[in-house]
Amino acid sequence: MQLQKEEIEQLEKKYRLNLINSISGIKPANLIGTKSLNHQENVAIFSSVVHLGSNPAQLGFIMRPQTEVPRDTYPNILETGFYTINHVSQSFIKKAHFTSAKLEKGVSEFERMRIEQEYIADFFAPFVKESVVKIGMKHQESIPLPNGCIFVIGSVEMLVIPDHVVNGLGQIDLEGCSGVGISGLNSYYALNKLDSFPYVREDEIPDFE
Amino acid sequence: MQLQKEEIEQLEKKYRLNLINSISGIKPANLIGTKSLNHQENVAIFSSVVHLGSNPAQLGFIMRPQTEVPRDTYPNILETGFYTINHVSQSFIKKAHFTSAKLEKGVSEFERMRIEQEYIADFFAPFVKESVVKIGMKHQESIPLPNGCIFVIGSVEMLVIPDHVVNGLGQIDLEGCSGVGISGLNSYYALNKLDSFPYVREDEIPDFE
Repeated sequence: MQLQKEEIEQLEKKYRLNLINSISGIKPANLIGTKSLNHQENVAIFSSVVHLGSNPAQLGFIMRPQTEVPRDTYPNILETGFYTINHVSQSFIKKAHFTSAKLEKGVSEFERMRIEQEYIADFFAPFVKESVVKIGMKHQESIPLPNGCIFVIGSVEMLVIPDHVVNGLGQIDLEGCSGVGISGLNSYYALNKLDSFPYVREDEIPDFE
Repeated sequence: MQLQKEEIEQLEKKYRLNLINSISGIKPANLIGTKSLNHQENVAIFSSVVHLGSNPAQLGFIMRPQTEVPRDTYPNILETGFYTINHVSQSFIKKAHFTSAKLEKGVSEFERMRIEQEYIADFFAPFVKESVVKIGMKHQESIPLPNGCIFVIGSVEMLVIPDHVVNGLGQIDLEGCSGVGISGLNSYYALNKLDSFPYVREDEIPDFE
């Protein structure tokens, strides 16, 4: 199919939602954990976490317009300044996916979806115990986007990873730790390592036939 | 390993670069194609494309500070307003990866890495012929980020996908089209479909044991 902008706008709503949500390619599957000042915990799946920089270590993610889907994650981040980002792995994709459901007020997804929370050192927000990669984040800045979404930027305050999934170069083995990706709104993919290539300088580029 | 912020800052530079680049999880592999006003073509790999909205259809991506790595992609986007986003698939991960090399001025990565370009309809910027998913983008806004990166937002103007990789719901089969993901700076992963789950309402949440 070859669609122009006007034709995309005229697609059936759910079809367009699925299609446009999948055109950016594979997306990371992360659970964001928060806690309100009155200790109500929350955990929710996000597929929009993006690397911003390594020094200082910063990550961003996209929050949908708060008017559209009023949830607890963002108010908790604003109220407390802290959140956690936790990798989803194959063993709990179903639980992780269902955190996108709207629960009754006062019910925690940790409890409802039987996702075990974990508090590490004195970090304020709850981590996901089963996650292989756990990141403690501090909110730095929120940038309003033209379509009403919010780009939430934070600094990496804490990192918890089992030694055996990180090699000597600092690379995480996403296959070894059963990492997953998301396509669109609700399709989950396993990851199988294909290859690694070196950094390149001009005089090191191979010949391509 | 359990690292606090200060310990992350003290990691060896390349180790930190690899580690922090891989903590966000799997990233999409896309080639961004541009052309300058004087018809010099450019194509470069990006792992930071992110979905912003479906109606209107918008995607964003992160440009590194232009002072740090002066390249052609961003000047071409500013100069012409147009660019293309093209999925990388398994058959050309090596070529795609090496577009990150710095070439001599005036040499196109299309030519040097033998990536075939394709012009579709009257869209100004070149697409990658071998890509299964091809997206024509119009620049909308550039937002400076606190660390000097730029968040580049564009609208989807055109979409080219073979019919057989899109199902009746509008979902793209990333395994069927040999899609790949990137971890960190230089590791490529194949994608194998695990499962899809429905959208959920409160009364449809399964029991979790």
